Amino acid sequence: MDSFQNYVSANRERFMAELQDFCRQPSVAAQNWGMREMADKVLARLERLGARARLIPIAGGAPVVFAEIGEGARTLIIYDHYDVQPPEPLALWESGPWDAVIRDGKLFARGVADNKGNLMCRIHAVEAYQAAVGALPLKIKFVVEGEEEIGSLHLPQFVKENRALIEGADGCLWEAGYKDVNDRPVISCGVKGIVYVELHARGAARDLHSASAAVVVNPAWRLVWALATLKDADDHILVDDLMKHVRALTAAEMDALKTIPYDEDKVKADLGIASFIRNLTGIELLKKYLYEPTCTICGLYSGYIGEGSKTVLPNHAFAKIDFRLVPNLSPDLVLDLLQKHLARRGFADIEVKLTETGEEVARSPLDSAIVRAAIDAARHVYRQAPVVYPTMAGSGPMYPLCQALGIPAVGAGVGWHDSRNHAPNESIRLADYFEGILFVRELIGRFAG
Amino acid sequence: MDSFQNYVSANRERFMAELQDFCRQPSVAAQNWGMREMADKVLARLERLGARARLIPIAGGAPVVFAEIGEGARTLIIYDHYDVQPPEPLALWESGPWDAVIRDGKLFARGVADNKGNLMCRIHAVEAYQAAVGALPLKIKFVVEGEEEIGSLHLPQFVKENRALIEGADGCLWEAGYKDVNDRPVISCGVKGIVYVELHARGAARDLHSASAAVVVNPAWRLVWALATLKDADDHILVDDLMKHVRALTAAEMDALKTIPYDEDKVKADLGIASFIRNLTGIELLKKYLYEPTCTICGLYSGYIGEGSKTVLPNHAFAKIDFRLVPNLSPDLVLDLLQKHLARRGFADIEVKLTETGEEVARSPLDSAIVRAAIDAARHVYRQAPVVYPTMAGSGPMYPLCQALGIPAVGAGVGWHDSRNHAPNESIRLADYFEGILFVRELIGRFAG
Repeated sequence: MDSFQNYVSANRERFMAELQDFCRQPSVAAQNWGMREMADKVLARLERLGARARLIPIAGGAPVVFAEIGEGARTLIIYDHYDVQPPEPLALWESGPWDAVIRDGKLFARGVADNKGNLMCRIHAVEAYQAAVGALPLKIKFVVEGEEEIGSLHLPQFVKENRALIEGADGCLWEAGYKDVNDRPVISCGVKGIVYVELHARGAARDLHSASAAVVVNPAWRLVWALATLKDADDHILVDDLMKHVRALTAAEMDALKTIPYDEDKVKADLGIASFIRNLTGIELLKKYLYEPTCTICGLYSGYIGEGSKTVLPNHAFAKIDFRLVPNLSPDLVLDLLQKHLARRGFADIEVKLTETGEEVARSPLDSAIVRAAIDAARHVYRQAPVVYPTMAGSGPMYPLCQALGIPAVGAGVGWHDSRNHAPNESIRLADYFEGILFVRELIGRFAG
Repeated sequence: MDSFQNYVSANRERFMAELQDFCRQPSVAAQNWGMREMADKVLARLERLGARARLIPIAGGAPVVFAEIGEGARTLIIYDHYDVQPPEPLALWESGPWDAVIRDGKLFARGVADNKGNLMCRIHAVEAYQAAVGALPLKIKFVVEGEEEIGSLHLPQFVKENRALIEGADGCLWEAGYKDVNDRPVISCGVKGIVYVELHARGAARDLHSASAAVVVNPAWRLVWALATLKDADDHILVDDLMKHVRALTAAEMDALKTIPYDEDKVKADLGIASFIRNLTGIELLKKYLYEPTCTICGLYSGYIGEGSKTVLPNHAFAKIDFRLVPNLSPDLVLDLLQKHLARRGFADIEVKLTETGEEVARSPLDSAIVRAAIDAARHVYRQAPVVYPTMAGSGPMYPLCQALGIPAVGAGVGWHDSRNHAPNESIRLADYFEGILFVRELIGRFAG
């Protein structure tokens, strides 16, 4: 072990305690729960690191924790977020989402994989670098926002108001990465866009006895009929004209899929599914996964959903839907197409409510310096070539923070294939966490040049 | 005022207090909440009336409160139930569902209209009759069950085991009735059948990040697609062969509709709807309301339904659906048709769960003695001819308790057009309650002959 590894090893228990402390602070942006407390925690930790840190307010939004540390020819942005997904459904957690219990070599908590583990791992790597190796060989700028899980509503505004802090950076370490079902490290070089909407159907002035349903409109049925026009049972999106806007793939994009070893059988076994949608497999499966848009019912509600039977005609029904976007779909375009589609089919009475402003697609060049540094660092630390995804299937504010300013970004981190982001029993493995610290050290060294 | 009216008037406050006491005892069959306590309350009240009362247990079900009082040539069954619907959604109640608050001449409580008000009104009428008029001129048998709101699951078993207590009765006063939007008393001579099911769709072993929805099945979508095959946007039931089983209407059935004054504009204004389904009006509207089956989504759930956005791929979705039945649809038939319909369309994976055993259709002859007595009594008390519905749009165990034993039944009671049965802010008007007591007295006199 070298001095860096010795330092990490000697501070292992404190590092874990610090991560648990982060995870025990609820910070649910969707529920505006604990946001300021968490921002203060992150600020204090970055100050203890020796960084010039501050909260940068954004009108109407959660503040960004911004911090600078180190000097060098190159500047690396480290992007993370201090907000987490809602913990519901609570009943399915084996230990409380805010208990941050360590069990079987894993830390279980809402947000530990997405994204507090990565944030703390990077802080610990910088601390260890400075303590055991010396001064940082580059400038690092932490950008830690508080609204990632609600679509980074105000991050574009932050960039607009603080452009000088961001532009000119040479690369960005994006928030996350993980090991796949065969424990191969996965790094990714882009994100899908997203637009998240609620559809609300309304009926009579109040709930009625269901005997009235013979003659009085049922908004639950209207919602079902409207939804059924959006996607067919083979998972083809039917929103008028939407698929026409999706641009054809380039040869390079198709080639990138060929390098991805995707263990379909293990993934299926892990998820408990017999097959993927449309029985897709191989390149066609990856193509749909990474390069095609989605239209997903994330939530559905009407009437009585408790135990037993209640014979009620509901007067309200809603669905929460996210669309994941690929080039050349934008949030505004999809929203517009959706509204026109519904109106054309007689569903103009169904309210389409935008719950987020949406996010644009972004993809970084696979041959950029930050991507190459990440690949090299991963090969060194994990002793195998990482799997390189040209884009994640998920989303994030990579466009406004990076691509719009010409900054390439790469995602790498401490998740594992069963991290259960956004779901009950979210976890990271402790071994991955400490390997992640080594990875960040190697990335710093290689990217500094 | 005669002595009967004097007695009622003198005991007005106690009568209200007794009704409030009934309403303050939760008795939600679907949630198995307070059932035994309520049965004991009803038993004690009937004993105080001087009836020979007892709880008759049914294996696996809530006991029936059975009581006999009076002697005479004729026997009248009074059918009521001591269970109520669940109180949810609680937030929409202006006063608590168990507070039984009197406000603006109305009593607000879960179950006050359906059906505790009617039960207590009948008890009070018998009390006043005995105190102010004399011995009852007929035999009355109270049958007060505890599972009406969950489909009278065990009432057929009760009848089977206690047939001698029921058979030979000359008529039955069914649980409820109300005044319409123009304050005309409504009596009804039948019920629709019902079958209540849950459809459950399941996906991966757990909830996933919605990025996975590009390739992993979404049970919320499968449920939507399956539901959309059950009924079209014009409210035609599409379950294979279901409508073929509905028998044609007789001339007498169509004639019965012509006598019903249905104030469509007032009903629409009251419910806050611009039109009825398919813009129906007149006889066609009444025909659909009373003589056609329904397929109603009473509840719908999947994924995240809290505030804000959660990008989750749910692993479970369900719908609660009731079918109201007309001749010749039976619960078993509809369940069978539904399962075959779904399987035929590739939805065999969707579990169809019966939450109640279902109820058969029943209709009593409009010229039977009990119906004629109710019409005469209503005309006398309300000083206008009642509106006679050949059947309610709702359901109840009229088939096993009455029709199967050749006992005609008629529904009449103390509701009003805005009683909000099964919904928040359920109420009766106090004036209707006390008029209802006079109605029961007149019915007793007329039916005894």
